[in-house]
Amino acid sequence: MPSTSVPPSLAQEIPPLLGRYREIRAATEALCRPLQVEDYVLQAMPDASPTRWHLAHVSWFFETFVLEPRVPAYRPFDPRYRALFNSYYNAVGPQFSRPVRGHLSRPTVAEVYAYRAHVDRGVASVLRSGNAEVVAPMVELGLQHEQQHQELILTDIKFNLSVNPLRPHCYPVTIPVGGETSRLDWLDVPGGVVWIGTDGPGFAFDNEGPRHRTLLAPYRLATRPVTNGEYLEFVDSGGYRDWRWWTSEGWRIVQERGWDAPLYWERDTDEWHVYTLAGPIALDPASPVAHVSWFEADAYARWRGWRLPTEAEWEHAATDLAIVGNFQESGLFHPLPAPGGDDLRQAFGDVWEWTQSAYLPYPGFQPMSGDAGEYNGKFMINQMVLRGGSCATSRSHIRPSYRNFFPPDARWQFSGIRLAADL
Amino acid sequence: MPSTSVPPSLAQEIPPLLGRYREIRAATEALCRPLQVEDYVLQAMPDASPTRWHLAHVSWFFETFVLEPRVPAYRPFDPRYRALFNSYYNAVGPQFSRPVRGHLSRPTVAEVYAYRAHVDRGVASVLRSGNAEVVAPMVELGLQHEQQHQELILTDIKFNLSVNPLRPHCYPVTIPVGGETSRLDWLDVPGGVVWIGTDGPGFAFDNEGPRHRTLLAPYRLATRPVTNGEYLEFVDSGGYRDWRWWTSEGWRIVQERGWDAPLYWERDTDEWHVYTLAGPIALDPASPVAHVSWFEADAYARWRGWRLPTEAEWEHAATDLAIVGNFQESGLFHPLPAPGGDDLRQAFGDVWEWTQSAYLPYPGFQPMSGDAGEYNGKFMINQMVLRGGSCATSRSHIRPSYRNFFPPDARWQFSGIRLAADL
Amino acid sequence: MPSTSVPPSLAQEIPPLLGRYREIRAATEALCRPLQVEDYVLQAMPDASPTRWHLAHVSWFFETFVLEPRVPAYRPFDPRYRALFNSYYNAVGPQFSRPVRGHLSRPTVAEVYAYRAHVDRGVASVLRSGNAEVVAPMVELGLQHEQQHQELILTDIKFNLSVNPLRPHCYPVTIPVGGETSRLDWLDVPGGVVWIGTDGPGFAFDNEGPRHRTLLAPYRLATRPVTNGEYLEFVDSGGYRDWRWWTSEGWRIVQERGWDAPLYWERDTDEWHVYTLAGPIALDPASPVAHVSWFEADAYARWRGWRLPTEAEWEHAATDLAIVGNFQESGLFHPLPAPGGDDLRQAFGDVWEWTQSAYLPYPGFQPMSGDAGEYNGKFMINQMVLRGGSCATSRSHIRPSYRNFFPPDARWQFSGIRLAADL
Amino acid sequence: MPSTSVPPSLAQEIPPLLGRYREIRAATEALCRPLQVEDYVLQAMPDASPTRWHLAHVSWFFETFVLEPRVPAYRPFDPRYRALFNSYYNAVGPQFSRPVRGHLSRPTVAEVYAYRAHVDRGVASVLRSGNAEVVAPMVELGLQHEQQHQELILTDIKFNLSVNPLRPHCYPVTIPVGGETSRLDWLDVPGGVVWIGTDGPGFAFDNEGPRHRTLLAPYRLATRPVTNGEYLEFVDSGGYRDWRWWTSEGWRIVQERGWDAPLYWERDTDEWHVYTLAGPIALDPASPVAHVSWFEADAYARWRGWRLPTEAEWEHAATDLAIVGNFQESGLFHPLPAPGGDDLRQAFGDVWEWTQSAYLPYPGFQPMSGDAGEYNGKFMINQMVLRGGSCATSRSHIRPSYRNFFPPDARWQFSGIRLAADL
Repeated sequence: MPSTSVPPSLAQEIPPLLGRYREIRAATEALCRPLQVEDYVLQAMPDASPTRWHLAHVSWFFETFVLEPRVPAYRPFDPRYRALFNSYYNAVGPQFSRPVRGHLSRPTVAEVYAYRAHVDRGVASVLRSGNAEVVAPMVELGLQHEQQHQELILTDIKFNLSVNPLRPHCYPVTIPVGGETSRLDWLDVPGGVVWIGTDGPGFAFDNEGPRHRTLLAPYRLATRPVTNGEYLEFVDSGGYRDWRWWTSEGWRIVQERGWDAPLYWERDTDEWHVYTLAGPIALDPASPVAHVSWFEADAYARWRGWRLPTEAEWEHAATDLAIVGNFQESGLFHPLPAPGGDDLRQAFGDVWEWTQSAYLPYPGFQPMSGDAGEYNGKFMINQMVLRGGSCATSRSHIRPSYRNFFPPDARWQFSGIRLAADL
Repeated sequence: MPSTSVPPSLAQEIPPLLGRYREIRAATEALCRPLQVEDYVLQAMPDASPTRWHLAHVSWFFETFVLEPRVPAYRPFDPRYRALFNSYYNAVGPQFSRPVRGHLSRPTVAEVYAYRAHVDRGVASVLRSGNAEVVAPMVELGLQHEQQHQELILTDIKFNLSVNPLRPHCYPVTIPVGGETSRLDWLDVPGGVVWIGTDGPGFAFDNEGPRHRTLLAPYRLATRPVTNGEYLEFVDSGGYRDWRWWTSEGWRIVQERGWDAPLYWERDTDEWHVYTLAGPIALDPASPVAHVSWFEADAYARWRGWRLPTEAEWEHAATDLAIVGNFQESGLFHPLPAPGGDDLRQAFGDVWEWTQSAYLPYPGFQPMSGDAGEYNGKFMINQMVLRGGSCATSRSHIRPSYRNFFPPDARWQFSGIRLAADL
Repeated sequence: MPSTSVPPSLAQEIPPLLGRYREIRAATEALCRPLQVEDYVLQAMPDASPTRWHLAHVSWFFETFVLEPRVPAYRPFDPRYRALFNSYYNAVGPQFSRPVRGHLSRPTVAEVYAYRAHVDRGVASVLRSGNAEVVAPMVELGLQHEQQHQELILTDIKFNLSVNPLRPHCYPVTIPVGGETSRLDWLDVPGGVVWIGTDGPGFAFDNEGPRHRTLLAPYRLATRPVTNGEYLEFVDSGGYRDWRWWTSEGWRIVQERGWDAPLYWERDTDEWHVYTLAGPIALDPASPVAHVSWFEADAYARWRGWRLPTEAEWEHAATDLAIVGNFQESGLFHPLPAPGGDDLRQAFGDVWEWTQSAYLPYPGFQPMSGDAGEYNGKFMINQMVLRGGSCATSRSHIRPSYRNFFPPDARWQFSGIRLAADL
Repeated sequence: MPSTSVPPSLAQEIPPLLGRYREIRAATEALCRPLQVEDYVLQAMPDASPTRWHLAHVSWFFETFVLEPRVPAYRPFDPRYRALFNSYYNAVGPQFSRPVRGHLSRPTVAEVYAYRAHVDRGVASVLRSGNAEVVAPMVELGLQHEQQHQELILTDIKFNLSVNPLRPHCYPVTIPVGGETSRLDWLDVPGGVVWIGTDGPGFAFDNEGPRHRTLLAPYRLATRPVTNGEYLEFVDSGGYRDWRWWTSEGWRIVQERGWDAPLYWERDTDEWHVYTLAGPIALDPASPVAHVSWFEADAYARWRGWRLPTEAEWEHAATDLAIVGNFQESGLFHPLPAPGGDDLRQAFGDVWEWTQSAYLPYPGFQPMSGDAGEYNGKFMINQMVLRGGSCATSRSHIRPSYRNFFPPDARWQFSGIRLAADL
């Protein structure tokens, strides 16, 4: 439906940030191309917003934080969108209730794409104007924000389609199954006083700084994430029926929700399948386990006699690694088996890795100033940190200092497990 | 989207029931023509099913109760629809959970129309075959059923669109406002032992019989329903803040849900508007009040010093009236002011009229036999009877003996009030 | 704890109503004598109020409706009790929240008894005064009210103790078990236009009138209630797992609440026991089944191919019977097997009998005037009528025209089943 | 009711641990002396268990973890108590449901005291036996456990009585009001690599270790907790109506629960009162604010431009302080104004101090072995650490390394605020 191509003859005149803007905006729309109009409307749980909403909200972000405050001539596409597509910014004003975003059919999908085009024209215009430098930081924030929502578009549509007994195949790709399981080794790290977090120079969210020192005891990290095959041993051994492996709250949730395997695992007679954005496939023992909550990650680690890493341990070990892996760009939207090797693998891409660190402010943390200050800081309670990005994350979006965070019962992200231990 | 025209040269060969089938099926689809694809998916409360679901479920009814048991060669369109579009027939098997019908985007709207066409071909074939007489009663039930869902398509899409702050205008019609209020008179009825209910010969649901005698004391009925203007006096006098007019459960609900006016009434500074399927319009004092619950109807009557009629009183008074009024066929989907006159007016059409009768079996009631026996009987508890049809009911669907029923807190139907009293 | 004895030498001077007052008040306290102080505080579900609350509320009734309006010199025991022990009288003012009456420990039990004594002195004084005739009707209402709460004290403490895994034996009585099952016969009644309800001259609640005529078709009634043995056949035949016998709402509740037998039935290996106020006893096949909801009564009747009687059928058949049976006065608080005989037995006492009549106003019904007008009328929605009293009802409290009412899912009363059919 | 005196002539023969046992057990019962029997039964929210339950549960702890495994001749008082008074030990077996502990009246209060005496005899016997050394560690744990429940008895009965509109005065003490507010100063701490946690030699819970090093940046701490007067400025300035000070979850809870001041604050016309265990008193501006949630503590700190301390900052600053302050032993059960001085005051006693540290395992943490291993470790998620003890804590129970923990919305503990900042 959307058209985002740029005539090649003009491409050289495009300011670099505008080029990046167009690329990321086009990538968002490309993710939606296989969807049916009906799919855009779904919200099967409060956390899984409709695709329509994501497409509009990320445009609202540019409209609200770039165009309205900085472009006097800008006319909003529809002033009622200010509340309708506000996610949680109290500084901007009221918000349409999040759990019922799926109760709206209007604006239609076509109107949302028209809204996007309207905002795109506004941003292009300001980025070609004398104001470009002034707006650049907020445009960059908007692009990072849009990349976060690219991932959410994928994880949300996966959840929303998964509740349909027809088991829709959404993306016409073939996910390779049947590769070999890479050997599980351990990387020993000596510890000491290390630097954590970032102060730039590249883009980072406010919650990734200030850069500061912390003291690490010697520790070891698994060289790759836990695989489906390994996790299946936990399932088969009765791990979901044995309170010993679980925190008290985790055990309550396992029982209340009837969990007996990761989200999207389905047992068909005695074969396990997993639901993917390409439809159901056989469970691949060699691939990293995904869609586990922190409660499950923590229980699994305890069952194995290990533990989850802290976020500082993770960052310290990953900070000099090349950012390679299976990202959104592969178009598979599903984790793959780890490649061979002795070093730390799959730190980036494939699955986010739960840590045992609560999502709290770094020493000296200050939220960014202005209306976007609510972006990260106000969520620093009752959430746990995940690191490293996933197969739904854009490669250009992830960094070693990146702090993702979700409540410990969240399972609909591509969240997995890397084991750690004291040395 | 659907095409239902019949070449005129063939029309004379069509069996009468098939003609009626095609007419009613086409009418259903005509109601959906103004909808956007996105609208078909919505379910903003458990009671208000998605249009997609209604369109498929009424076809499922013909497939399940006519084609599968009676047409050996019939191939179901998709065997998974048996559960997916089963509403509440335990005899047929499991059912997809009703409150989350809006969590499905597949089958798509286009696929649902293809499903309808598939079923249409099957029904046409059997109605042209030697089996026509055998299936006729069940086809007729299916058509009455589809007419009920026509009304629900309208009331459900009205509710589902109403929660959208954009206040969508769905049907491009102009609702006349500003007519004169017809005088309120009283019709005195002498009472005595009277016959109630029907045993035919025309179609009736099982719950409308057996025909039986009952004893009525002399009573009076208002010659027309309560108007918006009259009901507004109740609102303005503080009726929603005064426990004296309410049953105990009604008063609890008024407070818990914050009711202060009928559903769809909105005060804009000091003007009242009502949301309609044609978008918001000014409140018309002359039109019948609609979208009140039984609790509100009962409270209003008590406040006025009157009461609601029993269903026997209503039926006895209406039984010989001509079935004229403002029905679905007017295309307005909104009640109109009563015409002038001294006799009982608007008994049919415009608004359903709450009675003070609980929905219970008539003496000697037996549910119809077979799998469709769950149609009516199993709902005979905690519901109140409404009579007379509404502006969303097809004129060909209503009769004096017709018993509609909803729980006393339901407001999303076109439900209104006719006053009564003892003589 | 309470002392209610009257010196015999003075007894002859007591006005008859005061004598009756003292008798009923003493009977209430006698019911509480076996309780421990801790028992008085319990409320294990919103419907089952603490004994403390009942004892105080019935006194509040006399204080609020007799003493305060009619005895100028009366000083309330504690003005804060006006709200604390108001059940649901909006005309009197605010009410302490009903579901959390068990969250209060003060006033203590001793203080509540002191409150009772204070009110008793006030009532005695006014009944000896020149005002006695003026207050007599309201005192009589208060006594009938207290008798209703005597029954609730028993049913509520039974429920509240039943959730305790220690299975307390509260009343030191022996319930006879092992009698013979009386034969089930049928009484045929010709029908016709009959009189129902009462206009006096004895005491009756407002909802029992006005007396009016109704038309009954010929019908038959079972000569005794359904027994445990008969009901056990329904249980054993899988009745609770077969949707065919249940209304839609009943079936939903059976599944949501996991019902598989009447309340208080417990299967111990393959023996059934029932919890009673004297502790658990073996299930007696000959005794009437008790503690079934309307949903279960209705399902049982459907399974047997019969139905429940209407309240008019019940009253017409019972109106000339002697009021004999197993009442509160037997001290057993448990239903007993029906005596032999061919006529209608156990119409009064043992178990309340669910009817298929919704609790609605009789033609011409007006609530009594004054603040006590909320007593009955405001509950006339979503409840079903029960008739005949139970083993927890005082014999002096019941009459043929008496209309008890509970929601169809209520099970904690001594509610049973009498079958009926069309002739 | 309980009798715990020991004949003085025998006192010298009592082994020291038995002496300590008797002292602590007697202290528990002394706390209950002012209660009415009815008070022991209350549970006005799931968190606030009945006093009866606490008295029995702490005895159950000795029975289950000391007597049953170690004293072959020991006969349990009632084998059904094993489940009835099990709090959350899955290793021991099933547990009576925590939110409905208030639905039980049996065993009665007298029976619970008899249970205590039975257990006391068992413990005394084993502590005088050759097994004394073997059981000593578990007895010590049981005593620390009982001291924790002493505090809960006080905080729970305070909550449970507070919902009573009669505002019961429970403890006959006079809380001094009207003292002077101590000056607020700041203590600067240089930071560096410091030792945190304990490895003994005195008793400590498993969660207080292992002792380990951590790196602190320089910081400052307020020399005393925030006072009511200071907190009132936050309330009066509209702090509860301004989202800017709150985390996202905190803001949601403030609105959902209608919080507008700390728990137990009540505005009476324009005077503030607070409910205490001695009944309502005027709000004392000089006393530490208590009964705030973590959300409120965090919001207050943000509003002032400061922050909460981390638990490591707190412990490092408090580790060498004398343990003096206003503890349970003062019998006031209410915080008092800080004494004058320039150093860190009220670190111990008066109010627990919320930190900005999530309750997570220290590096190398292992739960204690055996069935009591569920004591602390399984709660290490979604809770925040508090430090220092309160006016309801026994002085002999608190230490610098003590880690208390509650969810961030908990308010019924004596929880207050000490401010901190980066240097």
